[in-house]
Amino acid sequence: MIDTPSLVDQYCHGVLRTELGLGTFEARLARTEGPPAPGTTLFDTQTGFAVRRWCPPLLGLEPHCPPARYLARRRELGVLEASRRLLRGSGITTYLVDTSPPGDLTGPGEMASAGDARAHEIVRLEPLAEQVADTSGTVDSFLANLAESVHAAAAHAVAFASAAGVRHGLALAPEPPGPGEVRRAAGRWLAGRRAGGELSDPVLLRHLLWIAVASGRPLQLHAGLGAPGPSTDRADPLLLTEFVRATAGLGTDLVLLHGYPYQRHAAHLAGVFAHVHVDAGAALARTGARAAAVLAETLELAPFGKILFSSGAQALPELHVVGARLFREALGRVLGTWVAEGAWSAGDAERVAGMIAAGNARRVYGLG
Amino acid sequence: MIDTPSLVDQYCHGVLRTELGLGTFEARLARTEGPPAPGTTLFDTQTGFAVRRWCPPLLGLEPHCPPARYLARRRELGVLEASRRLLRGSGITTYLVDTSPPGDLTGPGEMASAGDARAHEIVRLEPLAEQVADTSGTVDSFLANLAESVHAAAAHAVAFASAAGVRHGLALAPEPPGPGEVRRAAGRWLAGRRAGGELSDPVLLRHLLWIAVASGRPLQLHAGLGAPGPSTDRADPLLLTEFVRATAGLGTDLVLLHGYPYQRHAAHLAGVFAHVHVDAGAALARTGARAAAVLAETLELAPFGKILFSSGAQALPELHVVGARLFREALGRVLGTWVAEGAWSAGDAERVAGMIAAGNARRVYGLG
Amino acid sequence: MIDTPSLVDQYCHGVLRTELGLGTFEARLARTEGPPAPGTTLFDTQTGFAVRRWCPPLLGLEPHCPPARYLARRRELGVLEASRRLLRGSGITTYLVDTSPPGDLTGPGEMASAGDARAHEIVRLEPLAEQVADTSGTVDSFLANLAESVHAAAAHAVAFASAAGVRHGLALAPEPPGPGEVRRAAGRWLAGRRAGGELSDPVLLRHLLWIAVASGRPLQLHAGLGAPGPSTDRADPLLLTEFVRATAGLGTDLVLLHGYPYQRHAAHLAGVFAHVHVDAGAALARTGARAAAVLAETLELAPFGKILFSSGAQALPELHVVGARLFREALGRVLGTWVAEGAWSAGDAERVAGMIAAGNARRVYGLG
Repeated sequence: MIDTPSLVDQYCHGVLRTELGLGTFEARLARTEGPPAPGTTLFDTQTGFAVRRWCPPLLGLEPHCPPARYLARRRELGVLEASRRLLRGSGITTYLVDTSPPGDLTGPGEMASAGDARAHEIVRLEPLAEQVADTSGTVDSFLANLAESVHAAAAHAVAFASAAGVRHGLALAPEPPGPGEVRRAAGRWLAGRRAGGELSDPVLLRHLLWIAVASGRPLQLHAGLGAPGPSTDRADPLLLTEFVRATAGLGTDLVLLHGYPYQRHAAHLAGVFAHVHVDAGAALARTGARAAAVLAETLELAPFGKILFSSGAQALPELHVVGARLFREALGRVLGTWVAEGAWSAGDAERVAGMIAAGNARRVYGLG
Repeated sequence: MIDTPSLVDQYCHGVLRTELGLGTFEARLARTEGPPAPGTTLFDTQTGFAVRRWCPPLLGLEPHCPPARYLARRRELGVLEASRRLLRGSGITTYLVDTSPPGDLTGPGEMASAGDARAHEIVRLEPLAEQVADTSGTVDSFLANLAESVHAAAAHAVAFASAAGVRHGLALAPEPPGPGEVRRAAGRWLAGRRAGGELSDPVLLRHLLWIAVASGRPLQLHAGLGAPGPSTDRADPLLLTEFVRATAGLGTDLVLLHGYPYQRHAAHLAGVFAHVHVDAGAALARTGARAAAVLAETLELAPFGKILFSSGAQALPELHVVGARLFREALGRVLGTWVAEGAWSAGDAERVAGMIAAGNARRVYGLG
Repeated sequence: MIDTPSLVDQYCHGVLRTELGLGTFEARLARTEGPPAPGTTLFDTQTGFAVRRWCPPLLGLEPHCPPARYLARRRELGVLEASRRLLRGSGITTYLVDTSPPGDLTGPGEMASAGDARAHEIVRLEPLAEQVADTSGTVDSFLANLAESVHAAAAHAVAFASAAGVRHGLALAPEPPGPGEVRRAAGRWLAGRRAGGELSDPVLLRHLLWIAVASGRPLQLHAGLGAPGPSTDRADPLLLTEFVRATAGLGTDLVLLHGYPYQRHAAHLAGVFAHVHVDAGAALARTGARAAAVLAETLELAPFGKILFSSGAQALPELHVVGARLFREALGRVLGTWVAEGAWSAGDAERVAGMIAAGNARRVYGLG
């Protein structure tokens, strides 16, 4: 039996601090545009079934109990105690937490304390730029403050994350935009923008990526069909090939998050380029009983030293639990089968399991 | 053991009324451009092997018997009796029948009687427009008759189907074309057209889709690599994303037919948009022994209330049989494995099996 | 148990004649841009693990022994003896050898003698054109010599191979370029070229493909993510659809090499077009323990008479071994499972195994 006693979750968000009813809980199980279809429920999904499998026992209930019963028990314990039990039952010992959007989700400190774990901050680039825009009066001050903010964030964050692919699609021009191009784009964006307005200008998105690359911190890039967005047809990580090539040899690692259903494409990039790594996890909480099949596709082309676990969880600690449990079970089953078939040695399988679960993340993010 | 005693086939065609020789039978096993390569036979395909597995016992022969022996027995029984035995052995209790092209295939009434089942009509949009063009003298009368024909069809058909994706590719402009644009396109098409000429003009294809959407009947869209066509490189259902977004909230359901090999992409759309549903079946008759693996990919992202069975069969009742039998066996195996692994409860598995086999179709098509 | 006692390797290269240290051996295990990432090794890949599984026993060591020990034993035997033992242990009885690039790898004669097998030559088009360019003074002589060289190669080679997809992407215009277009492209290329310069002009690449098609010899086309290149985002074999349609009925067979991760797309083309065949093998040596899962995807849509084994191996005889061993084991497992499930008859499975392993290649390449 291959086991992974300690997990580093290389990408997640915090959890909600408020009590949830059945409907608000259900709405957090999946990323949709609009409510579920009449006559259907988001509990009837792989994620819903996985939550019902793994989480009730952590709160003292039977696996697969009905959603209403689970939610009642969750409220009975209170959101703080329920989160505490869930996070501590996940097997995750280090959380890397994307702290945007701020406000309603717990930050790294609270995650560490609730989960009896270590936690570090990931800074998302686009919300950072929007914050800077909210407080900068001119194009000049915006660009200067932006550079300074990224620089300052690099001093305390373990990584940057970008959702440029969700905002605009991954087919961005690979090279850094020139200073004049950036000034003009910033001028246009700031002129047309109200406070809080989202950044989706492709020139500024590229500018941000290149400032982050220059910082030397690992840069996480959302790829694949993770969230609804205007660009679901431009989410193939292979569209990043030229950007990847342009950033090779600069000393900054790239990490392709999620990737599904293009996990084989992401794995190919990790196989060809030394600085590219791939996520194995965020897709698992969405594919539930199929986690082993999905994970195995990443394990085809990606070098085993380039694959990193994440839960991709957001808002519900249940999603941290199912991300972690599904990953551990899937990895154990896939590698265990290969050992049983004689394809891998048991020693290699244990070593690789430890690398994917924690070791690779410790090396890439310098977690000591 | 998960079972599905009753199947609603949400998309199929009728069957041939004439006796078939070995060569004409073989030619109906697959959609090809031109005859099979010298030295090969279409019986040596997943579909050919599946027919030889499932159909001979329904005609009193051993599974896997040679094609020539099977065809001899088929002729001995006569096409009517053979069709009767095959359709009644399929497990399908309701057929939704695409009635185009008219003439050589049985219609819903004959399918119901031969199969001892219920049957309803699906109206395909493009042949309807071609019929209207054949009998309309002017652009004005064509457009008026077209609107009236779709309206009339909506009164008796349970759904519309469109092969716009096969005719032109799925990257159609999402919004409805303006009236002037439609008139100009109709003028061009009618002027250059001989009787029976196919509709492939993208403006008129979009116009048809939007008339159908306005009718409120579910709209089935062919997607994926189902049939040869000029646009096999533009068959990814993700290309429909903007059309899907434009039709959200209008009260009309979309059903993505076939989808293979992009079944994960189709499932993503069903997960994100309330009005999108996906087919699980039409690809199975083509992938045979791999049916469970293909079906399982649809079950990753698609909510279980949004997945509908179809056989996708045409011309040969053998294809209705293999579509249905492969689906039942694949679904039973996939869900049964998840129950055995503890990932799903047995009760959930039985419930979901019934939804995919029949319940979801009854809800979407209002079959009562 | 399904077995394939004799394999025709429809596409490979020769092996190195020089002794290899640990680092130079590792570098040949995968196609990368630049060295592996610090803290990782290319031995920690599916290919690395497959080499450690299958090759040590052929040199008298335990499976899965450490790389350093394996390399020491390899040097102890000497490169010639090690190659001889490995090739003879592969199960391959006929090698079709791509003889470009010339010089440092063994040719067909040496492969036959080292492997106790038959061997035939495959001529790669682009290096042939580059050789002709090196020795032609004018555009006229270049074009005349090119036609003559392809014609002469067709007399002794069993097939042509093209890497146009790697050089330029697969979205080439389908029709043959006109004579004036070819002359202008040749003029531009020759004028800007130094001796040895690579051919990547799309007009000349198409011209070469059409000269090869006219020869009647099977034409092998690299597709999928096989090697790093400028065009990794344009490697989907479906991009070849119009070229495939344009070459239908001309009497020349096309063989899509590698294909991964688009093996289902390649299989679709083989199902629709009589003259298209697909490779099942080159991807297996790269996906190792996942070989059965990858192979099974090709077996979904491709007619069984259109699938051909290759190792895709280059430089290391270890890659011929793992290509062949993984293929045999994967094919035996996939077909054996289908027989055990009752989906296929044992007789059909054995017949199909023999076709894919050798029979189809004998027919397509006329190997007698």
